Amino acid sequence: MSKKGRTAIVPTRNENYPEWYQQVIKAADLAENSEVRGCMVIKPWGYSLWENIQRNLDEMFKDTGHVNAYFPLFIPKSYFEKEAEHVEGFAKECAVVTHTRLEDDGNGGLKPAGKLTEELIVRPTSETIIGASFSKWVNSYRDLPLLINQWANVVRWEMRTRLFLRTSEFLWQEGHTVHESKEDALEETYRMLDVYAKFAEEYLAIPVIKGEKTESERFPGALNTFSIEAMMQDRKALQAGTSHFLGQNFAKASEIKFQNKSGSEEYAWTTSWGVSTRLIGALIMAHSDDNGLVLPPKIAPSHIAIIPIFRDEEQEKIVSEFIEKLLKKIKKLRFNEKKIRVEYDRRDIRGGEKNWFWVKKGIPIRLEIGPRDVATNSVFMSRRDKEVNEKESVSVEDFLNNLTSILDEIQTNIYQKALKFREKNTKKIDDKNEFYRFFTPKNKTNPEIHGGFALSHWCGNPACEEQIKNDLKVTIRCIPLDAETEKGKCIYCGKESEKRVVFAKSY
Amino acid sequence: MSKKGRTAIVPTRNENYPEWYQQVIKAADLAENSEVRGCMVIKPWGYSLWENIQRNLDEMFKDTGHVNAYFPLFIPKSYFEKEAEHVEGFAKECAVVTHTRLEDDGNGGLKPAGKLTEELIVRPTSETIIGASFSKWVNSYRDLPLLINQWANVVRWEMRTRLFLRTSEFLWQEGHTVHESKEDALEETYRMLDVYAKFAEEYLAIPVIKGEKTESERFPGALNTFSIEAMMQDRKALQAGTSHFLGQNFAKASEIKFQNKSGSEEYAWTTSWGVSTRLIGALIMAHSDDNGLVLPPKIAPSHIAIIPIFRDEEQEKIVSEFIEKLLKKIKKLRFNEKKIRVEYDRRDIRGGEKNWFWVKKGIPIRLEIGPRDVATNSVFMSRRDKEVNEKESVSVEDFLNNLTSILDEIQTNIYQKALKFREKNTKKIDDKNEFYRFFTPKNKTNPEIHGGFALSHWCGNPACEEQIKNDLKVTIRCIPLDAETEKGKCIYCGKESEKRVVFAKSY
Repeated sequence: MSKKGRTAIVPTRNENYPEWYQQVIKAADLAENSEVRGCMVIKPWGYSLWENIQRNLDEMFKDTGHVNAYFPLFIPKSYFEKEAEHVEGFAKECAVVTHTRLEDDGNGGLKPAGKLTEELIVRPTSETIIGASFSKWVNSYRDLPLLINQWANVVRWEMRTRLFLRTSEFLWQEGHTVHESKEDALEETYRMLDVYAKFAEEYLAIPVIKGEKTESERFPGALNTFSIEAMMQDRKALQAGTSHFLGQNFAKASEIKFQNKSGSEEYAWTTSWGVSTRLIGALIMAHSDDNGLVLPPKIAPSHIAIIPIFRDEEQEKIVSEFIEKLLKKIKKLRFNEKKIRVEYDRRDIRGGEKNWFWVKKGIPIRLEIGPRDVATNSVFMSRRDKEVNEKESVSVEDFLNNLTSILDEIQTNIYQKALKFREKNTKKIDDKNEFYRFFTPKNKTNPEIHGGFALSHWCGNPACEEQIKNDLKVTIRCIPLDAETEKGKCIYCGKESEKRVVFAKSY
Repeated sequence: MSKKGRTAIVPTRNENYPEWYQQVIKAADLAENSEVRGCMVIKPWGYSLWENIQRNLDEMFKDTGHVNAYFPLFIPKSYFEKEAEHVEGFAKECAVVTHTRLEDDGNGGLKPAGKLTEELIVRPTSETIIGASFSKWVNSYRDLPLLINQWANVVRWEMRTRLFLRTSEFLWQEGHTVHESKEDALEETYRMLDVYAKFAEEYLAIPVIKGEKTESERFPGALNTFSIEAMMQDRKALQAGTSHFLGQNFAKASEIKFQNKSGSEEYAWTTSWGVSTRLIGALIMAHSDDNGLVLPPKIAPSHIAIIPIFRDEEQEKIVSEFIEKLLKKIKKLRFNEKKIRVEYDRRDIRGGEKNWFWVKKGIPIRLEIGPRDVATNSVFMSRRDKEVNEKESVSVEDFLNNLTSILDEIQTNIYQKALKFREKNTKKIDDKNEFYRFFTPKNKTNPEIHGGFALSHWCGNPACEEQIKNDLKVTIRCIPLDAETEKGKCIYCGKESEKRVVFAKSY
C-alpha cells in the first residue's frame, strides 16, 4: 500500500483532478462503468451512500407533508410532446422503446418484433406522465395541495459520461406538487430548496449557495428554476439539487384543472424538484483527499472500522473477546438517532493493509486493537478528519462516553473545511481583466484548477452571459437568494447592475 | 356510504371475486391503471405498503449478510442471448430500446432517431447483466460468497394485466448470490425461501406452503425453483416469492470463475430470488372483506385513524385538545420496534363518512372521540379485525396500556383467519373423480370459486401434470418441502407415487 511520502490515491488532486476523482471511486469501490453505454454499476459501498441519502431525505420530505408514489417508467410519445419547451429540452437524449419482443432472425440471433403503434420514451423526468394522473386526481380546491414524491431511475442519453456526475441512467427522486395559487406553488418551490440546502449542509457537510438560475439554465418548461450550488475542490461549481416553479405550463399541457372556492374552474400551479445520485459525486469531490474518500459520519455507510492486531492464536483470542465486548457496548449507542454501525475487519490480511483499506473507504473512525490495548483497556484510534498517521490511545470508557461527540466533531470539521475552502476561493471581482485572469488556469499541468467562484455584477442581458461562457466556459451558477441590492456595473459590458451573481466553471 | 345490510364493496367476494378485487383497490385508493399499456400507477396508500414491505424485508436481507447494489436498467441483446433457456423464457415479452433520440418528422411530430447498433432490452430480470459484473468481481474463493440484492423496476410485456398481480412494469427486489460450492448455493436458496416464508407469515399475516416447483414451472435457466404459495379467498394459489438454484448455468453463460482453495479455476454456483409488488395483490386478496381492505398492523401504512366528533366550535375545541394530548402519548409508544402511526382525520366531512373511509383503507384501529368520551376520559374504539359496527368505549389509560397488545392481537387474528380458511379449503384427495369435482366451480354466477388446494399424489410424469392443466386449469403449485414420504397412486394415471403435491388453480 501507500509508502512514506506517497499518497494512497495516484494521481493527487493537484496532479490531475479528473483522474484523481476516478481513482478515489475505484479505491473506495463505489461504482464502475458497465458495458452498457453510459450506465454505471453502483457497488455496495456506493449504494449504501445512496440508501443513507434516501432515508434521510425521505424523512425530511415526509416531515414537510409529502407522500411517495410510483408512476410508469414509460412515457407515450404523445404525452412527451405536450409541452413544447420540455420536449425540446429532452428529445435529443432519450431512450426510445419501439418493440415489445424479440424473435428469431433466421441467423441464430434475435431481432426486435411486435412493433408498437406509438413509441414509448424511457422517462428522462416525469412531469408529463405524472401530469396525466394528476389531471384525474385533482378536481376541487379540496384536493390541493397535492404533495407527491417518487424515488425512481431515469434515463438521459448522455454522450460524455462520468460516474455519478453524468450517467445515461441515474437514480433520483422527483417531487411533483400541485397548488391552488401561484403563491402556494412558489412557497413550495422555496421550501424544497431549503430542504435540499439543509440536507446538503447538515448531512453531506457541503456548504451550498441557494439561488435562482438565469433563463438559459432553466429547466425546460419551468418559469423559475432554483438550485443549490456547491464548490468542489477543483473550484468548479456543482449543481446539487434543483427546485422548479412550473407556473401553469404543465397544468395546461396535462389539463390539471380544479374548481376553486368560488366555484369556477381554473388551471392549477405546479412545482417539481429533484436530487440524484449526482449528490454522491458531490460528496466525493467536496471532501475526499489524496488518500481517498472522506465521509461525513451522518452519511457514512458505517462509522467505525475495528482492526484486530495479534501475532498468534492466544493473542487473537484475547483481542477478539475484548472486541466482542466492545461491539456490544457500541451497539447500544446512537448517533443522529440511529444505530452506530461498525465493521469488524477479520479478514486474513495484514493490519496495515486493512488500515489503508478503510482510509480509502472514508470510514470516520478506525480502531486498532492489539494485546497492549487489551491490557490497558483502551483502543488505538485514528480519525478520517485528521492525518492518517495521527493515532491516539484512548481508554475504552472515554471512547464510549465521547463517541457521539467525536462523530459530531468529525461531521463539523468536514463541513468547516469545505466552507473555508469555498470562502478562500470565492472572490468579489469588479474588474473585467481580473475576472478573465481569475478563470484562467494557473497550473499548466492541471488545467482544471482555476480561481473559483467570482461574485460579480451582471446586467441581466443573456448576451453578456453567453459571451463569458464562450470565452471562458464560465456560467452564471445562480443569482443568490440572499444577494444584497448593491449598485455596480456588469462585469462584461459595464452597464448598470443591481446585484452580484455567482460566476463559475461547473460540472 | 354503506347502508344497513349493504357492504361497502360492491360486488362482494361471493358475487364476483375478480371485480371485488378491483373495487377494493379503488376504494382503498391503492393504485390505478395508467394509459401506458399494462403499467400501473401506485398511489400513496398503496406505495406505503410497498415501502413497509421493502423496509422490513431489507432488514431481513441485511441480517442474513446481504448488501444492496444497483445494476443497469438496460441489457445488451447479446448478454440476453447467452443463456438459451433464459432468453427463450423472456424474449417473447420484453421492451426493446432501438433508438436514442427523437427528431422532427417533418409533419409537426417526432420520430425515433439515433438508431443503436445493438438493441437494448429493458431488464425483465437481471441475471445476465449482473453476471457480467460478477465475472469481474469474483476471482478467488476469498471473494465468495458474494451476497447482493437489488431493489428495482423490471418490465415484462404482459398481454393480460391486473393491478399488482400482473403488470408490464413492476417493482421488485432480486437477490443474486455467488458461491464456492453446490451445497453453499443450495443452502442460500433454502435460506432465502425461509426468509420469504417468515416475512409472509409474520408481516403479511399470510400462511404459506414452502415447496419446489416442477420442471414445467421452473425459472428459465434454473436447476431448481422453490416458491412460497399462499391461498387467496377464491381458493386459488398465489406464488408469493421464488428462490432459484441456478447451478453453474449462469456462471458458465457469464464466465463467473474463481480460483478454489487448491489453486485451480472452476465455475461458481449461483442463486437468485425475488419478490415483487405482487405481494400487495396477495395481501389484498388474502385478508380483505366485503367492506374493503384489511391490513395486518405490521405492514399497515398507519395504525390508528382518529375521527373527532363535535357539533359546534366549543365542542370542537374540547375534543381537539383532548386528541392532541392523546397523540403525544401515542407517539411515545412503539409497535414492532417502530413508531405507532396515527391519522388524525380533520377533514370537513361527516364522521360516518370518515369511518367508512378508514374501514375501506383497512386501518387496524379507528377511534371516534366526542365530548362524551372527553368527559369520561375514554375513546370509542373499533377494530378492523372485528365487525364494522362493533365498537367499545375504553378508558384512555387502558387504551394506551393495551395498544401494543391490541395491535399484536389484530396481527394474530388476521393470520389465524387466513390459516383457518386455507385449512378448511385444503383436502387430501385420492380419487380422480373427486379431484375433478373439487376443481369444478360450485357457484355458477361466480365461476372463480371452486374447491381449493388438493393434496394428491403425482407420479412425477410431466404428461399427467399437463393433462390436468388442460382439463381443469389446475397446476402443481409445489412439491412441499415438508411432504412426508407416503405410498400412493398418481391422481391422474394411477401409477405409484411417494409424495403428495399441492394442486390448485392459480394467479
